Amino acid sequence: MIDAGIVLASDSRTNAGVDNISTFRKMKVFERPGDRVIVMVNSGNLAVTQATLNHLEQGMRRAEGAPNIMNVRSMWEVAELVGSALREVRHRDGPFLMQTNVDASANFIIGGQIAGEEQRLFMVYTEGNFIEATPETPYFQIGEVKYGKPIIDRVITAGTNMDDAVKCVLVSFDSTMRSNLSVGLPIDLVCYEKDSLHLSLVRRFDEQDPYMRTLRQKWGEGVRRAFAELPRLEWDGH
Amino acid sequence: MIDAGIVLASDSRTNAGVDNISTFRKMKVFERPGDRVIVMVNSGNLAVTQATLNHLEQGMRRAEGAPNIMNVRSMWEVAELVGSALREVRHRDGPFLMQTNVDASANFIIGGQIAGEEQRLFMVYTEGNFIEATPETPYFQIGEVKYGKPIIDRVITAGTNMDDAVKCVLVSFDSTMRSNLSVGLPIDLVCYEKDSLHLSLVRRFDEQDPYMRTLRQKWGEGVRRAFAELPRLEWDGH
Repeated sequence: MIDAGIVLASDSRTNAGVDNISTFRKMKVFERPGDRVIVMVNSGNLAVTQATLNHLEQGMRRAEGAPNIMNVRSMWEVAELVGSALREVRHRDGPFLMQTNVDASANFIIGGQIAGEEQRLFMVYTEGNFIEATPETPYFQIGEVKYGKPIIDRVITAGTNMDDAVKCVLVSFDSTMRSNLSVGLPIDLVCYEKDSLHLSLVRRFDEQDPYMRTLRQKWGEGVRRAFAELPRLEWDGH
Repeated sequence: MIDAGIVLASDSRTNAGVDNISTFRKMKVFERPGDRVIVMVNSGNLAVTQATLNHLEQGMRRAEGAPNIMNVRSMWEVAELVGSALREVRHRDGPFLMQTNVDASANFIIGGQIAGEEQRLFMVYTEGNFIEATPETPYFQIGEVKYGKPIIDRVITAGTNMDDAVKCVLVSFDSTMRSNLSVGLPIDLVCYEKDSLHLSLVRRFDEQDPYMRTLRQKWGEGVRRAFAELPRLEWDGH
């Protein structure tokens, strides 16, 4: 989340052991232009995250008075709804998964804006509690978080513009994909511009995407050039 | 490990919670010029790694016939000695540490050469078993491994020269230190040139080290420049 808006992205790789790698969308958009844009990305056990989203969607079809994603008045309440749904699913399915030592953990990042308040960004933990991004910590990562963190730490501040934020997110994913098989293209990416109350960009980058290919190639070249230009250590061995 | 030799490095940060961060050397050198160079770096529970090293040193003072680090004829046997010592320490101390949920895990990387065989590189797991580096996987990391992995994956091959390997190891540590508080300067670094049977470089880099400062600054600048030169994504939002 930057002053200009929010960028959210997710890969599509799901793995249950290296012999079973599939592609599933991990991003969900709830949008009513002019009223709200809510984007969720998730990581962890796919059955748990899908059941949690199903739970939220069922809530939208229930009696009109009951709070749901499309009628609550704050992003905080959205995060509460996600946390509660996640708790309910894990309460129901968790004991069965534990019997075979299956990891039932799941995380959500929720970003967006509801008319009447500011844009906000949350991360929901597997326990169902959550935290909100602050100016000091403007971004969240879930899933395979470490390989892609250094570039975000170097580039992103509140004042970063949207173009650079998009580039940074894609470079962060590229670093992760190079070092970890369980993260892979395609990547779903959305841009939300602050106070617009609609999504500006919804885009999927796959292996054939020309921008993604250029970015990966030029980033690799740029990093190797930066490396080559570093001075060598002077020592007697030479 | 590259064709030209081996570079080993370790940071010195030990933490038992963020309010208790101390500096301890995590590298141990066993060298008898012309006969053997054995360098060990470790990660994990400091009491366990120190006790393991103590165990190995006691072995060197025992009856002359018994195998120890300084008399075995292969690096494989060195790795076996380290694994056995680690198992013994964990067998003795582990149950007490478990009582208070203290993590008793520890890892070692062992690199070097003994006269009569090639240079070799091993990683000893906390369970005491170990693996050896191959041309396809020429490097090992232990401890906080992920942040610093992408640059190694991009740069290091068997044909990389020693200067570049040294730069790469230091850049890898820099990336890790930027993203994780539990890794910090000073860094101990040694270079071993293949078949030399003595260490070419033993150097400690601290906060004031001019080369390390230059490297960090120039690398940061180079990465930001590489990032700035990436093309922006063309989209209708602009």
